[in-house]
Amino acid sequence: MSNCIIAQSGGPTAVINSSVVGLLKGNKKMKAFDNVYGGLNGIEGILERNIINLSEISDEEISYFRFTPSSGLGSCRYKLKDPETNEEEYDRLMKIFHEYDIKAFFYVGGNDSMDTINKLSKYAKKKNIDIKFIGIPKTIDNDLMYTDHTPGFGSAAKFIGTTAIETYLDSSVYTNNGIFILETMGRDTGWLAASACLARIDNKPVADFIYLPEVVFDEEKFLKDVRKRFEENNKVYIVVSEGIRNKDGKFISEIESSTQDKFGHAQLGGVCNYLKNIIIENGITNRVKALELGILQRCSMHCASDMDLKEAYDVGKCAYQYAVDGETGKMVAINRTSNFLYDVSYTLVDTEKIANQVKYFPKEWINEEGNFVMQEAYDYFKPLIKNMPELAFEGNLPKYKVFNL
Amino acid sequence: MSNCIIAQSGGPTAVINSSVVGLLKGNKKMKAFDNVYGGLNGIEGILERNIINLSEISDEEISYFRFTPSSGLGSCRYKLKDPETNEEEYDRLMKIFHEYDIKAFFYVGGNDSMDTINKLSKYAKKKNIDIKFIGIPKTIDNDLMYTDHTPGFGSAAKFIGTTAIETYLDSSVYTNNGIFILETMGRDTGWLAASACLARIDNKPVADFIYLPEVVFDEEKFLKDVRKRFEENNKVYIVVSEGIRNKDGKFISEIESSTQDKFGHAQLGGVCNYLKNIIIENGITNRVKALELGILQRCSMHCASDMDLKEAYDVGKCAYQYAVDGETGKMVAINRTSNFLYDVSYTLVDTEKIANQVKYFPKEWINEEGNFVMQEAYDYFKPLIKNMPELAFEGNLPKYKVFNL
Repeated sequence: MSNCIIAQSGGPTAVINSSVVGLLKGNKKMKAFDNVYGGLNGIEGILERNIINLSEISDEEISYFRFTPSSGLGSCRYKLKDPETNEEEYDRLMKIFHEYDIKAFFYVGGNDSMDTINKLSKYAKKKNIDIKFIGIPKTIDNDLMYTDHTPGFGSAAKFIGTTAIETYLDSSVYTNNGIFILETMGRDTGWLAASACLARIDNKPVADFIYLPEVVFDEEKFLKDVRKRFEENNKVYIVVSEGIRNKDGKFISEIESSTQDKFGHAQLGGVCNYLKNIIIENGITNRVKALELGILQRCSMHCASDMDLKEAYDVGKCAYQYAVDGETGKMVAINRTSNFLYDVSYTLVDTEKIANQVKYFPKEWINEEGNFVMQEAYDYFKPLIKNMPELAFEGNLPKYKVFNL
Repeated sequence: MSNCIIAQSGGPTAVINSSVVGLLKGNKKMKAFDNVYGGLNGIEGILERNIINLSEISDEEISYFRFTPSSGLGSCRYKLKDPETNEEEYDRLMKIFHEYDIKAFFYVGGNDSMDTINKLSKYAKKKNIDIKFIGIPKTIDNDLMYTDHTPGFGSAAKFIGTTAIETYLDSSVYTNNGIFILETMGRDTGWLAASACLARIDNKPVADFIYLPEVVFDEEKFLKDVRKRFEENNKVYIVVSEGIRNKDGKFISEIESSTQDKFGHAQLGGVCNYLKNIIIENGITNRVKALELGILQRCSMHCASDMDLKEAYDVGKCAYQYAVDGETGKMVAINRTSNFLYDVSYTLVDTEKIANQVKYFPKEWINEEGNFVMQEAYDYFKPLIKNMPELAFEGNLPKYKVFNL
């Protein structure tokens, strides 16, 4: 018999630990490996032999861990060098795997992690080392190719949709309402900002406008649209992705605003504050509020999607099965087999194909004016945010368990 | 028979509509009034006859309204002028009440609303007008006197505690962790910031330091404390109230920072960014993140306290009962009758006593160093955040119902 190891990499999500638990439970049932090890802080930690035995942890602790947000095994932003020119790191890693009698390595992550899986699997093949390397997808950005969506995205979309409704209500209570701007993450793609279309009251979207990085940001049109809507409704609700750019490809968040606040400071703080400033400067109204959701959208387990948690669990379990079946150098992907009665199947994609590619929000799901999304987007998002998770509580707050602290 | 009217005022909370429903249900049972009217946008809207009949709304809609955050009847920031010198507004209001055959007026709000109740009840008495005026407390700030706590606060505290754990986990995943600063509301009092002491992992508080407006902010000591803790743990988690001030009484948020960001702007955006800047300027570390919770802490029904919702409902129901009993010019207050097996009773306080007073966070619940809170604070907060609400869903997001849109 032998062992396997799993580790996490890149930015955290609400459901990343669920994938680890899916794999653990898979082994509990099939027992293909004696032990499932956890590498703390990804490849970086494994190189330092920061390794724990997850198979020795009690079922109770694992049940809390499953519903704990953020990378409970720790994470890293470590990129392996090119194996052609730098074998040393690869050798060290293989030596450590050999010490622990490891026959399969699983990496939960995004683009960079799939690149790592790709490099390691090739290296192992070249050196005739019998270790399987399987990637498990995760990213709130939903920008991985060859998968219908990515675990972690559904929970982020649910948090964005929920807070969009709630902040819309909060910013609509007076007779003199102003303009509200909600900023989401999404440096390169608009999936997160677009998911705000889920937010509806009486079946009407709360957002007036949604701005995505996939559309060149035209300041003049923006001001015209906002002014008109404000004159019509005495309020405007705007959602914007942090990654919008102008026609020169410059991030709007990097343009200096000429507005100064009441203490004489130039204002900054992301796109939402830039938009706030130009709305005020152009005399539309002074009543403008801006809110950056920041890291809340990737760690809010208290508002996670149970569907997302389930799928994250399943991709972990499938990764395990594929490794046992002898696959390597691949990532588990999700196929949507039905949308109306939502269902998915799992498959494998070559990590070579995935690494360094980006899945953009489809142009055909953006309206002609470039300031909102189409019904297709709503239909795509809706099943991904289904159901609330059942959390354990302690001291009247969620009880979480991590292994990296 | 006759009618009564209820309206909402001031900043919204997650549970303010629950008080309206408590009162409605009270009348459904006792039937002391033919109709319960709702004044839209508080006194300001009532003066414009923006009045709806809540008794005609279906039970189903009311059940959604009960679990809807923010002021579902709309709100205002309207202060009645002094009745001694300006009777006109009072007369207009009494005339409208007469038109609608109103015998009791209920105002859900904070300090200013209690001042309104006080003025109106006195005016009615003076003019021999038989209308009862009862105040129903609400404020996330928890700063009303003569009540153990205020409906709305528990839900805000629960959101702060929950997001403190979750952002702590998110900001602790790398081997090189930095400093995280969470900014809460609380311009004058520290109740909200202090409630972050609820956030614990393995029964240990996640926050290293909590800074309240009740303690003079000493920048030198702050930097010394943070530097020491960072050297010890390689990470520091800080919670700060927006209202902290220096020894001259100046808000820290109004002090100009000399730091410029990578684009050459002076930075601003609340206390958390000021603290971030001085940590960087003083060379402690460059890895500092700051997050302002903003209005999320007062509208996050998806993370509300069910205990808070229940108490908000009960103060509405009690207000009704007190008006029927002939009381006027008073506010319903909450007494904590037991903490271990948490229980409360409801009573009345003269609004004259409450208006224009502030309940500060107790000095004796702050540690000697002035940078954290005592166990007494934790014990006080804990029962107020109990249980999650059971929300209705539509399109996989919470289904909310308001009457002001």
